[in-house]
Amino acid sequence: MRSSAANAELALLLEVAGTPKPGNVDRRRDLADLRFEHFLAGAVGAREGLGLAADGAAVGPAFERAVEGMAAQEGGNTQFGALLLLVPLVRTAREDLSQPVAESVVRETTVGDAAAFYRAFDHVDVGVADPPEDMAALDVRRGSDAVPAVEDRGLTLFELMERSVPGDDVAREWVRGFERSFAAAERLVDADGPVTDRTAAVFLSLLAERPDTLVATRHDQATAEEVADRAAALVADDALETDPEAVEAFADDLVDRGVNPGTTADITAAGLFIALEREAIEL
Amino acid sequence: MRSSAANAELALLLEVAGTPKPGNVDRRRDLADLRFEHFLAGAVGAREGLGLAADGAAVGPAFERAVEGMAAQEGGNTQFGALLLLVPLVRTAREDLSQPVAESVVRETTVGDAAAFYRAFDHVDVGVADPPEDMAALDVRRGSDAVPAVEDRGLTLFELMERSVPGDDVAREWVRGFERSFAAAERLVDADGPVTDRTAAVFLSLLAERPDTLVATRHDQATAEEVADRAAALVADDALETDPEAVEAFADDLVDRGVNPGTTADITAAGLFIALEREAIEL
Repeated sequence: MRSSAANAELALLLEVAGTPKPGNVDRRRDLADLRFEHFLAGAVGAREGLGLAADGAAVGPAFERAVEGMAAQEGGNTQFGALLLLVPLVRTAREDLSQPVAESVVRETTVGDAAAFYRAFDHVDVGVADPPEDMAALDVRRGSDAVPAVEDRGLTLFELMERSVPGDDVAREWVRGFERSFAAAERLVDADGPVTDRTAAVFLSLLAERPDTLVATRHDQATAEEVADRAAALVADDALETDPEAVEAFADDLVDRGVNPGTTADITAAGLFIALEREAIEL
Repeated sequence: MRSSAANAELALLLEVAGTPKPGNVDRRRDLADLRFEHFLAGAVGAREGLGLAADGAAVGPAFERAVEGMAAQEGGNTQFGALLLLVPLVRTAREDLSQPVAESVVRETTVGDAAAFYRAFDHVDVGVADPPEDMAALDVRRGSDAVPAVEDRGLTLFELMERSVPGDDVAREWVRGFERSFAAAERLVDADGPVTDRTAAVFLSLLAERPDTLVATRHDQATAEEVADRAAALVADDALETDPEAVEAFADDLVDRGVNPGTTADITAAGLFIALEREAIEL
């Protein structure tokens, strides 16, 4: 039986291997400066921080360590959002990998966890939106420079995540008991075929469900909605089965336009971890 | 900086991601029952045993643990031979990752290491040739059942490897100071492009150099020689640059015929580890 840290790392690897995963790096596609091997190295590098979470370390420091290790490759940010989901889920699995326990794990985070979260931004550039004006001191892009302001205001990591919703569907998972992550796990179990095919199917279903918040941040809400609508049309046609070339064409088009639904990939990775940890998918 | 265990795991992942790697599973190809994701899971599962070697455990027990973890997926044997090279090399890296130190690490293995090596065969089916008649009691396929015979004869793991040459080019690495593994590392450093392209180039150069011993075992020597000759012709033409379709066609042909040059892949993975550990290739 694999350890929780090993399952989390494997979830990252299976996520990037799943294909077609429109707009993102996958087994068949690289972006210009962000290639498949950067994700392999990112997953391997994250293992130590994931192991800290499995051993019972606090969420913030374990996350910071995972991000530091993930960032030790030249592609830049590969799995920041996925780790923000995986670290609390690995911590949850120590007790019972359920939504109520996951919810209590994130609600119990502290100001110290928030400070570690900010320090994680020192290790890697992450695509985030500008904060509201009254929150400029708390701009995550300031990294550890913002820690005194975080401590002054006494914000816990959970409270920070609450303030990031709407506009960040990774933060939304924290606030809503990881509902889409657990739903993704169920769908992975119900799907057919090799796990990388299931990954592609679940990714597309998640993409169809809600506009990807990373796309909305990097491009605009209209682009995110257009992508979700096209995904929904493909899902309605069961296109992965009936017209796989249409999905491949959608994937190529998004890559060409630099539209990368990264939040959807993060939730897919979280779902893979839950399914692996429950031994609900065979591999 | 990545730990030695992390570099060894990453070497396994980069090896399988390298494409085209004629006859083997790669980023673009699966075999019927042995798919890309089995190699991902095998690499993740091996990490703990690789970590034991990095922490100074004896080669045999660390190898057994790595194989046990590697085998915790349904594809069967994915990386047995690669681990038989990586475990002593990770152990070597504790001191100095050089050929003389690697040679002394393997020469110092004991009867206990040999016993652990046999126990590793309990975890997975490995394609090996029939032993000579006077060695039937020592047939590795007997796994732990053969341990009393191993102990009776007082054979160290190094002595077992010596007896496996010729016919097993992984064992030959043990006996010859890992000369092809270190040469592969040099070639990876000298090659151009992303590391997965370098991996493909070095794999082809190794395949051209000596008939693959796994192919000779599973098929016959003539097949192994034919494959080496075709690889040599492609290398002579610089085909990866000048005629990549010829290499892809060769890859597809070998997969169709079930000809898998696994020993060459093992040595490629060992070369990747050495190059990563020396920080001689960027990623």
